[in-house]
Parts: sequence; structure tokens; C-alpha cells
Amino acid sequence: MFEEMAKSPAAWLSGSGDEASVVLSTRVRLARNVAGCRYPTSADSDTKKRVVGYFDSTLTRSELLTGGQYLKASDLNDLDRGFLVERHLISPTFLNGDASKALLIGEQERVSVMVNEEDHLRIQALSAGLDTDGSYDLATKYESEIGKHIEFDYDHDFGFLTACPTNAGTGMRASVLIHLPGLVLTREIDKTISRITRSGLVVRGFYGEGSDVLGNLFQISNQNTLGVAEKEILGHITRVTSEIVEEEAAARQTLVVEAQDMIEDKIWRAYGILRHARVLSSDEVMNLLSAVRLGQGMKVIDFLDVPLINEILLLSQPAHLQKYYDREMDHTRRDFVRAQMVREKLRETRV
Amino acid sequence: MFEEMAKSPAAWLSGSGDEASVVLSTRVRLARNVAGCRYPTSADSDTKKRVVGYFDSTLTRSELLTGGQYLKASDLNDLDRGFLVERHLISPTFLNGDASKALLIGEQERVSVMVNEEDHLRIQALSAGLDTDGSYDLATKYESEIGKHIEFDYDHDFGFLTACPTNAGTGMRASVLIHLPGLVLTREIDKTISRITRSGLVVRGFYGEGSDVLGNLFQISNQNTLGVAEKEILGHITRVTSEIVEEEAAARQTLVVEAQDMIEDKIWRAYGILRHARVLSSDEVMNLLSAVRLGQGMKVIDFLDVPLINEILLLSQPAHLQKYYDREMDHTRRDFVRAQMVREKLRETRV
Repeated sequence: MFEEMAKSPAAWLSGSGDEASVVLSTRVRLARNVAGCRYPTSADSDTKKRVVGYFDSTLTRSELLTGGQYLKASDLNDLDRGFLVERHLISPTFLNGDASKALLIGEQERVSVMVNEEDHLRIQALSAGLDTDGSYDLATKYESEIGKHIEFDYDHDFGFLTACPTNAGTGMRASVLIHLPGLVLTREIDKTISRITRSGLVVRGFYGEGSDVLGNLFQISNQNTLGVAEKEILGHITRVTSEIVEEEAAARQTLVVEAQDMIEDKIWRAYGILRHARVLSSDEVMNLLSAVRLGQGMKVIDFLDVPLINEILLLSQPAHLQKYYDREMDHTRRDFVRAQMVREKLRETRV
Repeated sequence: MFEEMAKSPAAWLSGSGDEASVVLSTRVRLARNVAGCRYPTSADSDTKKRVVGYFDSTLTRSELLTGGQYLKASDLNDLDRGFLVERHLISPTFLNGDASKALLIGEQERVSVMVNEEDHLRIQALSAGLDTDGSYDLATKYESEIGKHIEFDYDHDFGFLTACPTNAGTGMRASVLIHLPGLVLTREIDKTISRITRSGLVVRGFYGEGSDVLGNLFQISNQNTLGVAEKEILGHITRVTSEIVEEEAAARQTLVVEAQDMIEDKIWRAYGILRHARVLSSDEVMNLLSAVRLGQGMKVIDFLDVPLINEILLLSQPAHLQKYYDREMDHTRRDFVRAQMVREKLRETRV
């Protein structure tokens, strides 16, 4: 499954949108639960099956939802699951073992609905670049459609109720995936992260909660979901992100003034290794692509575009690589084939 | 001075000759002293001037010697001296401060005669590849010619007398410059060096005595000069070198069998960095070229030839770089210009 999907880039990594040279994508997810059912974390198997059943029957009654790709956990093997995680369509913890789970993928993979994750429904929308409103509007479009057929657990004082109290209220988590090599190289990043954290936002790694920072890619998301209006949260994230984009630009300017040769050397060496290496781990590709992406943004490398960089980033991940070549490969083989893929993708470029 | 010389490769680095893919060059030098004069290490200024005078008048009486380029220490600045050391035409300690020194460079730079180094005369001949006889014949051709006009200090029991007793007898030191990345990568090099040492030979770095091993380049030379015939020494070095060449080939075969991807990756990464870096130190170039040279020898890289690799090796050295571009440059500037030179030289190649 997904071999064809692996061959086309994800829309949220199209490299378009506002601030696209720094902000890769924006994600908004809404947590919703079905009124009158125990939440997945404490529900028995029958309850969870019932929730999937509710969602099944909702799909058939909605033109919007019928258009998507609907999958049951039992349809998917480990590699399929890994692929979906890499594609940011499911959370790493979703689809682990438990069969009473389902997934809807809608509109160019910009939307996914996880059934029986921590909450009954997790509706997520992804956009390229900085676009909190676009992602929010898309997520609420699906939420409204589902809400026509399923009654959500809602409290007039608290708002939407969720399995974990940190999600209650709006049930919304908005996040941006942002590339900050300038702030890392100028060692300003810790100050920036402190400021983001003080403003009530959270900073995480590429794969979200608990993941490491790879390739200088950071996820910034809201902490609070309760007692704040959605638009307020989205506006706050957009403002803070715009500030960080400016700080990143200033850091890159500092690098040009103070260490141009050093930084151009770093960028070109990364390109040279990607262009010629025979063995590459996915972490190394992430880090080398970070330098190349910086080079693209600083116009040091003028023959590479963001969509290609994003495509390589996506395909370098283990499950993507296997889906792309349509065969299972062990770690050693992957590192070899990954380097081959990267060379082929870059060979089409000039230098 | 030497700007033009810097633009053409040294004949001893032509990449031709026996075992040229492993043995870069062979050097033979003869130490001779003028009978009746104190040796330079203990001679006063007048004596040393007198020796230079003897040599001056010898030159004018010999067609062979007139053909060379004759230089006095006072003609040369620090950069000129550095250039000659890098070109292996003088020893690093020659031309330090003392004006009563002279240098003859003959036949395509394959011969040099240092006047008032540690001994009155050091006659050296260089050949590409493994060629102890060729170098010896060339050195003795000059030695005989000079011997027609200058009486050498010779003892019927000891042979030629020299400033340091370790050179007495034949006064000959023969050495090969050999590239052993396979033995280094398979960690066999220490065993090989022990065996070389036990056979009575000495192993040194790229610039000879007291220098570090750079780029997996080793100099192997004879220890004994006394009580052994020249031909015996040369034969011994040739035999041992041929054995090492075989060991190196076996090591490369082991690498192919046990770690082909790893070794090809190392080779191509080195090429990628050389091809794209913006800042390169000369030590780094030496090490990267070692991998590229290995790749050429193993036919992993098929579009680079040994003469080009040797040319880059030579031009990467600090004085060569400045002579090549005909301007003095500080360390930082050199690292930048060196990377530019390497890119230009490699740009003419395929990938």
C-alpha cells in the first residue's frame, strides 16, 4: 500500500505558501469525542468498535468524507504505519497494535482524521508555509461535516472535552514546522526557544512530542487550549512565527557579514556529500539538507528549489524509501539505496 | 621567482613509471664533501664561501651543469624557499638564514644539488614511480661530472666521509614516496611498518625526517650507508617496496570484499568535498586526495588521472598556491583560494 503515494510529494511540503523559505508547513488538529462513549484510553474494545462504527456510517452520509481514502488499522502493516507517520498523517503512537482504529485521509493528504487515537477523533489539516487560518478553516470544514452526524462531547463551561485535560476547551493544537539553521549556527537558538516558551508556546522536534531536533527543524505549537478563543491562539502563533522568521533572517545576515566563507563552505560541502555519497543515514540527510536548504534560502545555491529539497527530505525517511522502491530493505541496504536516490534526484540539477 | 615553474607539474610527479598507482616517486641523494675543507656544520663563513666558489667554477667548466638553474641563498625570499621545499628540491632545513649556500636545479627539476647543506654537496635525483636505478644513475651522472673538478673527501676504509656518520660510506640515501591507504584502512599499516623497520629501512612522513604522515603518504628510505654497496641498498629498497605494493593491493582487495560500500562512500565523499568546498586547508586536501587517489587506483572513480591528482597535491601546498596565483596570501585567504583552485582543476572532469 502507498507505493504510488510515495512517488508524489505531499501537498503540505510543496514549498509554497507564506514564508516558505523558513516555514515548511502549518498544522491544526482538533480533538473531539463522541458524547456518551468512554474515551479510547479507558474504553473497552466494544466501545471503540462502536465509535469506529459511528464514523463509518458518517462517511457514507457525507460527500466530503466519501472523497477521502478510508483505512482500518487491520488493513495496515508496520511499514504502512511507518509511512503514514513519516508523512505526518498519523501520530507515532496511533495504530500501535489496537485493531479498533481507523483513518481517513482527505483532500490531497492535507487532511487526516484519526479514529480512536487518544481521543475518539483527531481531525488534522496541514498547509504549506505559514498558514494557520488556512489549516484551521480546512480542519473545521471536516469537523463541521462530521459534527452533522456525530454529537461531540461538549461542556458549556469548559468547551470540548478530551481524554487529556491539556487538550480540553478548544481541543485545538496548532503548530508550525520551521527551519532555523541561522539561529542554531549563531548560537541564538536557546534564547529564541526561551522566548517562545515564555510566550506560552511549546518547541519540539521534527516528529512532534518527544522527538529530537533533526536538520534544524523545529515544531512550535500552542500549550493552552482552554479559556482562549481559537482565533486568538492562531493569531498568537502567526505573530510569534513571524518574529522568529525575522530573527532567523537577521541571524543569516550576521552569518554573511561575519563568516561568509565558512557558511558557504558548510553549504557546499553538504551539497557535495549529498551529490556524491554512497551511504547515507536518514538523520545525516536531514542535517545535510538543512545546510542545502539554508543555501537555497541565502541564494548561495541557485539551482535547487524548495520542492526538490522537500521531496528528498520526505523520500529519505525509512518507510518512504521502501515504499518508493516498492521493496523491504534492512538498515544497511536502505543507507545504500537512500544515497542512490539522493544522487538521482540531485543529478537533474546543474552542478 | 618560480611563478612559471609553479604552473607546470614537477617531472617526478608525472604519475608515470613503475607501480605508479601506489609509488609516487623515487629519490636518491648522495652526500659528498670537498677534501680539505671543514664541513658546513662546523665551518666558518669563509670556508663555506670557498666551497660555494669551488662549485661556481665547476659549473662554468661543465656543459651538463651549465644547463641547470643556479641560485644563491641571497636570491631567495622565504616564499621561494618554501616553494623549493614543497617541490622536494631542497630539504626543509636548507637555506635557513645562512647566505653561504647555493642550489643547482638540473634536468626538468629531476636533479638538485644543494651546496653547504649538512654536507658540502647533496646531489639528489628524483624519478616518477618506483625507479631506484634511474634515480641513482641520474644522481651519479651529476656526481661524476662534479667529481671531475672537485676532489671529494674519501677514505679507503670508510668510503665517502660525511658530516654525520650515519651518512658515511656510500653517502647515499634512497627513498620512495608511497601511498598506502589500503593498509591504513585495514589497520595493517603498523605491522607493515614494523616489518619495514626490521628489514633495516626507515619510514617517515611526506616531507621526510620528522614530518607527519599526511594523506597516507609514506617515505621509505635506507638506514645504513656504510659497508653496503649502493646496488645492494637500491635492490633492497626495490624488493621491499614491491612487497609493500603487493600488500597494499591485497589490503584494497580486502576492502572491496568486506566493505565495498563503505570504501566507495569514503572515496566519493572526499571527491564531493574537494569538488564543492569553499575553504580547504592543505592538510585536508592531502587527506581527501588520498581517498580520491585510492578511488582512481581501485577504478571507483574513472574520470580522474594520476597526473591531475598529483598536480592538485603540489599546488595545494602554501607556497605553491601563492606562486601559482603570483600573490602573497595569509592563511585564511589561502584556504579560500585553495578551494577555488581545487574546484577549477576538478571542474574539467566529468561528474
